[in-house]
Amino acid sequence: MSFADAVARLTPPDAGAAAEAAELHDRLAKPRGALGRLETVGIALAGIAGECPPPVPEPVLVAVFAGDHGVHAEAVTPWPQEVTAQMVAAFAAGAAAVNVLARHAGADVLVVDVGVAADLSPAPGLLVRKVRHGTANLATGPAMSVDEATQALDVGAAVAAEAVAGGARGLVTGDMGIANTTASAALIAAFTGRSAAEVTGRGTGIDDVTLRRKRLVVEAAASGVAGAGPLETLAAVGGLEIAALAGFIVGGAAARVPVVVDGVIALAALLAAAALAPGCLDYCVAGHRSTEPGATAALEYLGLEPLLDLGLRLGEGTGAVLAAPLVQAAAKILREMATLDSAGVTEKG
Amino acid sequence: MSFADAVARLTPPDAGAAAEAAELHDRLAKPRGALGRLETVGIALAGIAGECPPPVPEPVLVAVFAGDHGVHAEAVTPWPQEVTAQMVAAFAAGAAAVNVLARHAGADVLVVDVGVAADLSPAPGLLVRKVRHGTANLATGPAMSVDEATQALDVGAAVAAEAVAGGARGLVTGDMGIANTTASAALIAAFTGRSAAEVTGRGTGIDDVTLRRKRLVVEAAASGVAGAGPLETLAAVGGLEIAALAGFIVGGAAARVPVVVDGVIALAALLAAAALAPGCLDYCVAGHRSTEPGATAALEYLGLEPLLDLGLRLGEGTGAVLAAPLVQAAAKILREMATLDSAGVTEKG
Repeated sequence: MSFADAVARLTPPDAGAAAEAAELHDRLAKPRGALGRLETVGIALAGIAGECPPPVPEPVLVAVFAGDHGVHAEAVTPWPQEVTAQMVAAFAAGAAAVNVLARHAGADVLVVDVGVAADLSPAPGLLVRKVRHGTANLATGPAMSVDEATQALDVGAAVAAEAVAGGARGLVTGDMGIANTTASAALIAAFTGRSAAEVTGRGTGIDDVTLRRKRLVVEAAASGVAGAGPLETLAAVGGLEIAALAGFIVGGAAARVPVVVDGVIALAALLAAAALAPGCLDYCVAGHRSTEPGATAALEYLGLEPLLDLGLRLGEGTGAVLAAPLVQAAAKILREMATLDSAGVTEKG
Repeated sequence: MSFADAVARLTPPDAGAAAEAAELHDRLAKPRGALGRLETVGIALAGIAGECPPPVPEPVLVAVFAGDHGVHAEAVTPWPQEVTAQMVAAFAAGAAAVNVLARHAGADVLVVDVGVAADLSPAPGLLVRKVRHGTANLATGPAMSVDEATQALDVGAAVAAEAVAGGARGLVTGDMGIANTTASAALIAAFTGRSAAEVTGRGTGIDDVTLRRKRLVVEAAASGVAGAGPLETLAAVGGLEIAALAGFIVGGAAARVPVVVDGVIALAALLAAAALAPGCLDYCVAGHRSTEPGATAALEYLGLEPLLDLGLRLGEGTGAVLAAPLVQAAAKILREMATLDSAGVTEKG
């Protein structure tokens, strides 16, 4: 499925099923509203699936999209570019943080090379769908062409469609790409209208000098796309894995499964996705509030409140995969809990 | 094991193992500190177990202590007192919220009747250790005698010791008792010095008139125990299930397993436990920030930051059992993740 196909198939959630879930919540063996966010997530899941009670979103697939960034040449990070490929190898070996957390949550991990600079050895769990060997330097010209951005959107939409066809009932966004917090900050500044100072963070933990340099890059990039459309913006200052993530989100929404969105990279992708296909937002659950300031700027702009706030700033999908069991729990509450009536509980006076 | 035995066996966490975990975190295949709270929890788990990497705290047991409250006579809640026994039956039937969430987390539920007003039918998963049939009305006299409070502390400490002897490697606090947010608010006011207005909340969702009445009860109760010792305070304005929870927390700490603490009832118990045996705090992880204002007052007083903040206000252990998998994840990160070195990742420049 192409990205355009996914956009065309996007439909709103089922308001009737959502209303039924809200009504069921008020009859469960608990005071009204006492399960907080589990209730609102459960209602959203019913709308997404068009069923009350909603199916439990399992199995879950974490798709980690990997790509390199030409803006690495601007010395915005102390980590060498080859770390992207090294981490992809660690994902394939099952030894990175996201693998540990996905195993714990009973989720599978698929790594998608959509633009790593190096040619990667084949490995189980690694899908090579490379659009190009890393982006160009967004500080000196567009990161990629509109055609390349569209190809990356198509890769993401196809991965989501294939995952759901293969049985996945919940999707989690993951990402890897050295220097990708710079591209994300530029996208977040461009889409939210916030200043570079507000949205640029320390990423992996950069020093003050590097942070100042990074802010200048973000500021110039965001002002360079002022007035451009969402696809042009994504191409000019985004990243291949970010465009693929935007496609993946819309692809998941088109397939009517919940998409748990990770930190600042995924939120930059979600801003692009929501600009290109606003209806996708109804299928998204924000998993975790990254410490990157751009994440909070994007969440506020999108009106999302993440389920977790644990101070993570790793990416890979680590925050979102930690939240996936909470989303599943919300469905189980609606499926498995007794009502006040069935439990023989006397209603309050 | 009695409560006094548990207090006597309490030892500080192993600082060496904790330091080893902190050092290991800095070598894992991620930027330093990038896993946020998962890192601090992992370090605490190493100290608790005296091993690095720490064992994964599983299996987990949720102990739901149930008791009734004489202060129900003051009309502080619209729910009839028999709901306590009805909910105990729902727990035994596996159909309440905590059962659903515990199954999802792979945890077992044990219900302990430490003071339900009714005589309960035997059921699998229900332990009858009744100290008395509900407390007396704390608005008109002490809720229980010091001897009864001690018996309830003993019940809790024994349940924790038996659970760990039976294989549990993580404990979760649960509670049930109509009107127990009133007793909890009184304890929180007494132990933290906060006013009744600051710590008294709407519990299951009471109206303004009931809330004003509840505040007056809490205010009078807290001022009645001004200057009293912790055990006397617990007896005078506490509850049987709250005293048992305090014993359970100290019992878990004495057995060197992590105790994931739930909402406002459990935090009132933790205030009592920490006053009686301060060392128990090092073994506790705050699971979830209840919307009850007393919960935040207790958390601030104790210097704890909960892992979750999902707007729950149900009790039963629901917030804490949702957090238990996060605690397990923290251990798995230290046990299963590759180091930068083993993953062949080039260190940052």
